[in-house]
Amino acid sequence: MAEPVFHPIDLILRKRDGHELSTEEIKEFVQSVVSSGERKAASQNNQPLADDSATAVISDAQIGSFLMAVFQRGLSRRELADLTTAMRFSGETFDASALPTFTVDKHSTGGVGDKSSLLIAPVLAAAGIENNPSISVPMISGRSLGHTGGTLDKLETIPGFDTQLSLARMGEVLRECHAALVGQTPRLVPADRILYAMRDHTGTVESPFLITASIMSKKLAEDLRGLVLDVKVGSGAFMPSYEQSKFLAELMVSTGELAGTRTVALLTSMDEPLGRFSGNWIEVWECVDIMKGMPHPMSADLIELSNALSGWMLYLAGKSASPQAGAELSDQILRNGKAYQAWLKIVRAQSGNASIFENPAAFHKPQATRVLKASRAGYLAGMDCKQVGWAVQRLGAGRTKPGDPVSAHAGIESHLKLGQKIEAGQPLFTLFSEEEALLEEPYRMLEATLSIADAPPQKMPLVREIVRKP
Amino acid sequence: MAEPVFHPIDLILRKRDGHELSTEEIKEFVQSVVSSGERKAASQNNQPLADDSATAVISDAQIGSFLMAVFQRGLSRRELADLTTAMRFSGETFDASALPTFTVDKHSTGGVGDKSSLLIAPVLAAAGIENNPSISVPMISGRSLGHTGGTLDKLETIPGFDTQLSLARMGEVLRECHAALVGQTPRLVPADRILYAMRDHTGTVESPFLITASIMSKKLAEDLRGLVLDVKVGSGAFMPSYEQSKFLAELMVSTGELAGTRTVALLTSMDEPLGRFSGNWIEVWECVDIMKGMPHPMSADLIELSNALSGWMLYLAGKSASPQAGAELSDQILRNGKAYQAWLKIVRAQSGNASIFENPAAFHKPQATRVLKASRAGYLAGMDCKQVGWAVQRLGAGRTKPGDPVSAHAGIESHLKLGQKIEAGQPLFTLFSEEEALLEEPYRMLEATLSIADAPPQKMPLVREIVRKP
Repeated sequence: MAEPVFHPIDLILRKRDGHELSTEEIKEFVQSVVSSGERKAASQNNQPLADDSATAVISDAQIGSFLMAVFQRGLSRRELADLTTAMRFSGETFDASALPTFTVDKHSTGGVGDKSSLLIAPVLAAAGIENNPSISVPMISGRSLGHTGGTLDKLETIPGFDTQLSLARMGEVLRECHAALVGQTPRLVPADRILYAMRDHTGTVESPFLITASIMSKKLAEDLRGLVLDVKVGSGAFMPSYEQSKFLAELMVSTGELAGTRTVALLTSMDEPLGRFSGNWIEVWECVDIMKGMPHPMSADLIELSNALSGWMLYLAGKSASPQAGAELSDQILRNGKAYQAWLKIVRAQSGNASIFENPAAFHKPQATRVLKASRAGYLAGMDCKQVGWAVQRLGAGRTKPGDPVSAHAGIESHLKLGQKIEAGQPLFTLFSEEEALLEEPYRMLEATLSIADAPPQKMPLVREIVRKP
Repeated sequence: MAEPVFHPIDLILRKRDGHELSTEEIKEFVQSVVSSGERKAASQNNQPLADDSATAVISDAQIGSFLMAVFQRGLSRRELADLTTAMRFSGETFDASALPTFTVDKHSTGGVGDKSSLLIAPVLAAAGIENNPSISVPMISGRSLGHTGGTLDKLETIPGFDTQLSLARMGEVLRECHAALVGQTPRLVPADRILYAMRDHTGTVESPFLITASIMSKKLAEDLRGLVLDVKVGSGAFMPSYEQSKFLAELMVSTGELAGTRTVALLTSMDEPLGRFSGNWIEVWECVDIMKGMPHPMSADLIELSNALSGWMLYLAGKSASPQAGAELSDQILRNGKAYQAWLKIVRAQSGNASIFENPAAFHKPQATRVLKASRAGYLAGMDCKQVGWAVQRLGAGRTKPGDPVSAHAGIESHLKLGQKIEAGQPLFTLFSEEEALLEEPYRMLEATLSIADAPPQKMPLVREIVRKP
């Protein structure tokens, strides 16, 4: 019998009218997206087109129309799992079968000052050296975009640090160090690269289904046994409401579990920048201080969040009897110097110059600095944390569009946490930039978004809720 | 103050989330669609791109996404009128101000054997010669597509007949003949050409809003004072239900009236082919017989429909006191030879060889013929008229894709109407084709779709309902 032929128009019509797509249809869609991307690249390079390819041709207009149909109609859990799987296997994937370890990773939906990955990877690596089982953290991270920071941009402020490892080289670093901190390779999940660019300009970014497929396809391509998701809620979160963040968390957990990866999501507060610093090098500096056993008092919330996430990862890996016991183990590893030893080993394995950590403050050389002081006495009552993230971006720490350079030194130092008592004239934030002229707008943004009240606000716990497979 | 800049993404996001678009936004969208089409054509011809154009660049993916958002969210009557107006004025338009006449036209949503335009244009032209007021019918028609026939394909079977007139030449024919039967010029409503091709492959054809904008932008580009729409209902209609046909009729009437054109829609039955013949030349032949005063008995329904539509057009033009009186006037003109005189004049003005009408039967030379006979006695009870239309198309009278050639001689002759009594073995349809091999599949399709019952079916009136401005 002849194979049924895939026509992109049929897929569009069925999703448009609210019908459920088959596993095979979704797979064909993803394959045609990738091959249309390859055709476009070949055409731009004046290479001959493979028009006789067995894969159906899908046009940009059809991809745009399909994405909007998915935006409006949604996906069933099964369709979402199928889309994620098809995207995951659209290019090369990491194969962890040669590593005799429990592979585990974390992912955050993006925050301000959230450098927890820089603590969690060394903690898990230190805990993972011991067997029964040993642990590997094949952490493939992203760059800063919009109001949120990116792990790669922070790491690349370490002189020599190479994030662009092949998957084979990542495997070697994992074998040696039990954690690797790398960027996406060009051939990993190519479907997501194409679809993400399409979503960005077709108005289909905010679909929780498409967000889930994008995040989970990349994480599952790491061949994970366990995954802990940090889904932010509050004024600095990507999703606009608690309910929407929770729905996204449920979709991601369902998708991970359907792919055979034990998946847990923590809904965590993002109402103010995490820790002391928000930027690039200054975030590395903050983590080095913590791992050296000299945490700044402003880092307390960052340490709490990192231990909560590491705790769940250690629990999933069988290293602790409960997530709480895992968090306690994580805290010990962070304070007893073992995390710092693991960190130095990872940095050196990825060609970084670890001598910079001897005096990290000396490497922080912003050309321009300004201090925002309290206009009155009272309590730090609130802020739009997304606005704070945009201020950090405009100081030079983030980018306006993909590919823009970022500054190592730009960012902010937070001097107070929500609910703390303030005297008039007390410093609230110190702003850093490479240029005096870049300070003014972020200063005004921070000034406008901070509120000081006569009474302390009700403060939310850092970890709001745990989402697990029902 | 600087002009606000138009970003296609904003339009998409607003329609995606169900907000109403402004007149200016819709206009900018249509302009950017047209200029993106021009850019693409320039690029294919290796001409330099006008990247510094003032019009916003919109990508195919964005057009596809926007069309699907409109499909899912719909348009308000105001948005629809704005979209139609922006499309109408996206290229050249006919300017009727120099004609001291009432311009009026009709449009059908497409049927099988529906050649009423070939009767209505001469009837109105004959009635329109007299002043107070005189009438012009600037009839810009389309080609066969899918299961429906096209007026241009029928006209072009007349040797020499030129449908590709410039708008200036159309004005001259109108001045001389009071009707012109032409095809769309390449520069008329270019936005529709681009959007129609996009809709076709992005799964957004069936939106009543996008159908209305497509039809009405082209009709209103004729600069009409009056417009009568023939919206088909029944098994041969484009829309799948009576309610959806009526909704489409209401949208088109509202859009015409908002543009200042008096607009009426007739919902008419399309449960069996109209008249005697369905094809191309054979339909011209049927009309010539009628206008010569020798109508075939099978043409009765065609004549009734044509008079109903002409009646409304004459009424709108002030030529009759009521639509009913208009239909009676139309019937007189059809029978007294005045329509035939007007027809000959139009054909000659458009370079057609009218001597062919002396013996139209002689020009019908199909290479292959087959007769479908009744398998049993009873009453002709029903058929899927869309299937009959597809059978006509597959005999060679229609096309599979735009640009395909059509046969002058292919088609069918109907020997009975729904509800008529049949003897076993009595001919039901005669099939005509250019090739013996093309007969088999249409023969089986017709055989399968016809049903014969012991009792006559309930027959619907030809004109089911009138939709006017409330």
